[in-house]
Amino acid sequence: METSKRPETLRWVGDSADGHLLLIDQTLLPLEVREIECRDVPSVWEAIRALRVRGAPAIGIAAAYGACLGLQRFRTADRSAFLTELDRVIEYLAGSRPTAVNLFWALERMRKTASAFRESTDAAEMLEGLMAEARRIHDEDRAMCRAIGRCGADLLADGSSVLTHCNAGGLATAEYGTALSVFFTAQDQGKRLHVFVDETRPLLQGARLTAWELMQRGVPCTLICDSMAGQVMREGRVQAVITGADRIAANGDTANKIGTYSLAVLAAAHEIPFFIAAPTSTFDLSIASGQQIPIEQREAAEITHGFGRQTAPDGVPVYNPAFDVTPARYIRAIITERGLISPVDAARIQSVVGN
Amino acid sequence: METSKRPETLRWVGDSADGHLLLIDQTLLPLEVREIECRDVPSVWEAIRALRVRGAPAIGIAAAYGACLGLQRFRTADRSAFLTELDRVIEYLAGSRPTAVNLFWALERMRKTASAFRESTDAAEMLEGLMAEARRIHDEDRAMCRAIGRCGADLLADGSSVLTHCNAGGLATAEYGTALSVFFTAQDQGKRLHVFVDETRPLLQGARLTAWELMQRGVPCTLICDSMAGQVMREGRVQAVITGADRIAANGDTANKIGTYSLAVLAAAHEIPFFIAAPTSTFDLSIASGQQIPIEQREAAEITHGFGRQTAPDGVPVYNPAFDVTPARYIRAIITERGLISPVDAARIQSVVGN
Repeated sequence: METSKRPETLRWVGDSADGHLLLIDQTLLPLEVREIECRDVPSVWEAIRALRVRGAPAIGIAAAYGACLGLQRFRTADRSAFLTELDRVIEYLAGSRPTAVNLFWALERMRKTASAFRESTDAAEMLEGLMAEARRIHDEDRAMCRAIGRCGADLLADGSSVLTHCNAGGLATAEYGTALSVFFTAQDQGKRLHVFVDETRPLLQGARLTAWELMQRGVPCTLICDSMAGQVMREGRVQAVITGADRIAANGDTANKIGTYSLAVLAAAHEIPFFIAAPTSTFDLSIASGQQIPIEQREAAEITHGFGRQTAPDGVPVYNPAFDVTPARYIRAIITERGLISPVDAARIQSVVGN
Repeated sequence: METSKRPETLRWVGDSADGHLLLIDQTLLPLEVREIECRDVPSVWEAIRALRVRGAPAIGIAAAYGACLGLQRFRTADRSAFLTELDRVIEYLAGSRPTAVNLFWALERMRKTASAFRESTDAAEMLEGLMAEARRIHDEDRAMCRAIGRCGADLLADGSSVLTHCNAGGLATAEYGTALSVFFTAQDQGKRLHVFVDETRPLLQGARLTAWELMQRGVPCTLICDSMAGQVMREGRVQAVITGADRIAANGDTANKIGTYSLAVLAAAHEIPFFIAAPTSTFDLSIASGQQIPIEQREAAEITHGFGRQTAPDGVPVYNPAFDVTPARYIRAIITERGLISPVDAARIQSVVGN
């Protein structure tokens, strides 16, 4: 266990492939900020499995570093033993969270990196090559978050107050996050901001993670219950709403944490602009509209036994959709690392995201 | 301690003033349904103070019965000792919850009843007279709830699905409640209903009390988080929204539990009628509009430590308004014991509520 003054979601300690990985244990937030030290593959696997590191980009980065950790003992092995071990480590890490797309994507990048080595490359060189690829995955994500932040910060005037929902922050990514990157970047530019944070029932990612991240970086914030957002808008306390996204259809319809759709409708009723901040990798151009996005239903206990205590009658029926879909017409603009998508329609999305 | 098969919020056991009061201990709901037996004034005082009985009408009824309990020992006393003790008991009970309007109103009715007795009335007769007044307060509230239920049930077609917020149920009143009375009455009429229940953060009255009441009376219901209401409307799962009210201005602007305003805006966006169910005693014709209704701010811990456990960072700023105000234009009708107020405007309110 180690702690530091400015903990990062994850960071590699040491200049070479002989270093190790530090991760903030997000299961302890916001009550305790503790970094866990991963010096072998099982510790990375366990951190991903137990949600100590969460958020698709962050999981991918952790897995890439995890593959390097697994090969440290094979630095002096022969080439074929090294590559056999790499396959084994990748397969093992891929089993940590079976549905995490970025996990498979990052591990596939590691595999492709290895397969591109020349026949004459020895194990030590291959290890450094894999290490360089893990760092690239990490750096690219950091740069993507920063680019989203620069794109979105232009939308916020000095003295703005903004509402956000759930956690689209650095804890899910390499560093600045997506929606939160807009706030951090605006603050870096010297703008004064205030962020209202929906607690985000049932799992309280807003209260537990977003409020913590904003406080860590000194962005003034105020926590509210989700049901208070309408009143906050009516009182003129916010000038914009910015959230992240889980999946965006070709026409701009956006799936995000349950409650996002209500915020978009409320924002429209109060003539407050509603923005989505998301990397272009979030777009799924294979689906025409949000109607094709399935809504995951989650277990009742998240609502009836939210925080270690039963708060509803035994056996009460529960409806617990994890996401909702906000129609494109409610979204003023989508903030991406390639620039602003506005108006939000299929043509503009194709021109920015399509290749 | 006693339990019964169909517990009531409160009930007097025994035909005469020699009986005693049973109250559901609402602090134990929904995990345990336990009636507490009040055989003296301090036990009633404690039940009100500790929120074992809550809701303005229910508190008033409990206090009226409490006054009777305090005079049982004075049945054979002389007249002046009886009246002195009555004053003492009323003053004591009035201190149980200093801001509960119905508490003072009910105790004042008991005092006026005593002052109207003729000089020749002895203590035993006075006790029975006070007992009769307590029963009248109880019966009037029961009848008022039933009348609201009959008025509102006409609005619901067989097979309707309705959304409600917080607890406007029998636990706050003598029996059927206000918004919930509409559902119970419609069910008594043989209509099939389904009720979606907002859990109602921060204090979860929907999850803890409303869901419990509906299940007790066999009304099919589904619990959701407040942030899910928009999605439930978008999916066409509800045909109406009905909530209670804390205070209604002369123009129909309505203060109710925080989150009600958001529901009204969302209902309008989905073309779903939004109704308020409330007795005419809820109207405050001395205020012209909702702008004059002060919004109580409550303590941060309700949000940051809501579930018996800390779920937000130490020291996070919190905004916790207890109520919001829904403008009259969002309210299709107000359901009262004197009939439906629709359209909701000052003229129609004056004609129904004014005297």
